[in-house]
Amino acid sequence: MASVASATNAPSHKDLQTNRVADNVSSFKAADTVIQLADTHKPKPDLNDLVFGTVFTDHMLTIEWSLKDGWQKPHIQPFGNLSVHPACSCLHYAVQLFEGMKAYRGPDNEVRLFRPMLNMKRMLNSAQRSCLPSFDDVELLECIRKLVELDQDWVPQSDSASLYIRPTFLGTEPSLGVKKPSRALLFVILSPVGSYFSTGVKPVSLWADSKYIRAWKGGTGDCKMGGNYGASIYAQYEAVGYGCQQVLWLYGDDHQVTEAGTMNVFLHWINENGEDELATPPLDGIILPGVTRQSILELAREWGEFNVSERYLTMADLRRALEESRVKEMFGSGTACIVSPVGRILYQGENLHIPCKENVPPLAFRLMKELTDIQYGRTPSDWSFIV
Amino acid sequence: MASVASATNAPSHKDLQTNRVADNVSSFKAADTVIQLADTHKPKPDLNDLVFGTVFTDHMLTIEWSLKDGWQKPHIQPFGNLSVHPACSCLHYAVQLFEGMKAYRGPDNEVRLFRPMLNMKRMLNSAQRSCLPSFDDVELLECIRKLVELDQDWVPQSDSASLYIRPTFLGTEPSLGVKKPSRALLFVILSPVGSYFSTGVKPVSLWADSKYIRAWKGGTGDCKMGGNYGASIYAQYEAVGYGCQQVLWLYGDDHQVTEAGTMNVFLHWINENGEDELATPPLDGIILPGVTRQSILELAREWGEFNVSERYLTMADLRRALEESRVKEMFGSGTACIVSPVGRILYQGENLHIPCKENVPPLAFRLMKELTDIQYGRTPSDWSFIV
Repeated sequence: MASVASATNAPSHKDLQTNRVADNVSSFKAADTVIQLADTHKPKPDLNDLVFGTVFTDHMLTIEWSLKDGWQKPHIQPFGNLSVHPACSCLHYAVQLFEGMKAYRGPDNEVRLFRPMLNMKRMLNSAQRSCLPSFDDVELLECIRKLVELDQDWVPQSDSASLYIRPTFLGTEPSLGVKKPSRALLFVILSPVGSYFSTGVKPVSLWADSKYIRAWKGGTGDCKMGGNYGASIYAQYEAVGYGCQQVLWLYGDDHQVTEAGTMNVFLHWINENGEDELATPPLDGIILPGVTRQSILELAREWGEFNVSERYLTMADLRRALEESRVKEMFGSGTACIVSPVGRILYQGENLHIPCKENVPPLAFRLMKELTDIQYGRTPSDWSFIV
Repeated sequence: MASVASATNAPSHKDLQTNRVADNVSSFKAADTVIQLADTHKPKPDLNDLVFGTVFTDHMLTIEWSLKDGWQKPHIQPFGNLSVHPACSCLHYAVQLFEGMKAYRGPDNEVRLFRPMLNMKRMLNSAQRSCLPSFDDVELLECIRKLVELDQDWVPQSDSASLYIRPTFLGTEPSLGVKKPSRALLFVILSPVGSYFSTGVKPVSLWADSKYIRAWKGGTGDCKMGGNYGASIYAQYEAVGYGCQQVLWLYGDDHQVTEAGTMNVFLHWINENGEDELATPPLDGIILPGVTRQSILELAREWGEFNVSERYLTMADLRRALEESRVKEMFGSGTACIVSPVGRILYQGENLHIPCKENVPPLAFRLMKELTDIQYGRTPSDWSFIV
């Protein structure tokens, strides 16, 4: 494990170096962290039959804020229930946001995070939109590093499992007015997760319908706020009722493709101008700026082998391209799966079959390999952050 | 206070009689309620300088549900913090909803609720949209009645103050998958509130802009889910920055008027056909079906003195009507204020001044009087539910 000092300076981490928020932001400091160790250590679960996000490590991080006293010292303490006032704004008005990231153990036994400053930046954006207080993103990352370091035995010895990290930020205003919270709680919990594709990669089927809309201009679709997710669950079960696994979220009268389930979405095709193109919807306010999305765009642009575009894609575009055999592959992207190939879309009563040779089409396979090689430290990269 | 039996039968309460959900819904039963009394009683606050929703009574109602064991017995217990697993879906994915209603003490010293079955029905609708379990609405109302009866000393002796009732329903699934919760907690807390207009009625000013959109077709704007509210706070502070008190929420390219702050909105005007009309936007999926909204529509239709319409109203309609002096008055409606006159709208850099004689224009005044007379039991009504 790297020392605190070297991790804070993090000379090898590009995202960290270039983007630290202004020094004058009032914030907690990682150096003030108070650590209370758990008396007992829980047994580690069998990763082969582990349901995502059901098992948690021995410790958690909590940091309290109030308008009156500002940020308090970070606390690393035994994992346990939160004591919450029943009028808290996080329970009534969804003043809440979260992040999702992972710690990976490499063949060199080092534990790495993947571009964690992108999560910290997005968390600050979500906090601003939620009227929650700002903080120094580098200090939060260092607190998370300390927590992961303490619970490092929970990072699986595996080339496909990992330790999921869930930073969460809640308004804890203990009164019922709809207003900026005067109190808040930032906490981080850790959960070991098995391989996303433990039983092999199976292409997902999507229900594309405009009955439910995930996010809209002037809303919060570009922030990782709780309300975006709770509102989606009902549609997810309707998709299952139609024999599909996830929702392909559409937008607008022209049925723009936006996201799939909780993933960003990519189309590799020969576009309407006959160009080889990897396309994903642009960050116009309704799309979550995924870390995996950004990394795929950056990798593919570096390759320089085909056009890489952030552009609108409608269901009519997709249907026509399928008819004309111009679709190469389509996949979702996210922290959980990296990439998840799409095999079928049910749209207006018709099953659109997406090419998906041998379950993992070539571009999805290549991206998954390049990204996991970086995440697990098999390929050295500026995107790695050593714990 | 009425006995349990008569309240459960509630022969005088029209909303209750006609709408009970099917008997085969699995539900908790009010008769099973376990009551644990508080050891000490808190002092009652001074209602004159009380901030809304900051003080709570001595007891609360909690009812737990799990997929495995179904609904548990209702518990009335001392008011206190909830113990919440840090992975709960109510904290991460805003699987949460609430209701707002009030108990009023009449000059006859009876405590009344106002059309509480409408809140129970709306709560069931919100629960369905949130993938939370159903329950028997009559049983929940009876549990709430028991709670209010126990804390009846907290219902102010006043012709304008009241006891605010906040039913809340949370997903308490203790894991991070985005899915239907396997556990849930329904709870109810009570908070005494002073007169909404303790310093006299002042017309509100509204910032009308399409930069932020409250709700959209295919979303959750017609349900009382937390996510609708947390997403609105940022816009509210931008309105204040523009010198206005609330947001007038617009929708669509034609800038339809939808809601004002957390209120439904009404326009009394001579419409484009020269007809005297009270208009409010229709329940097309983006409008919260307010109990006060419905009651105003029903009262005004009963009067039969002018057209009463649920119809679209655009900012262009409003601006033209103002130019042609066809606007009589405009007001918001809600449980907190009953009606709240609108005096000014800032739209596209222009201040639109809404007629607002002596701060409370005649229709708003008449509605406020008729509704509060029913709420406080000064006028007998089928809409009263005696505790």
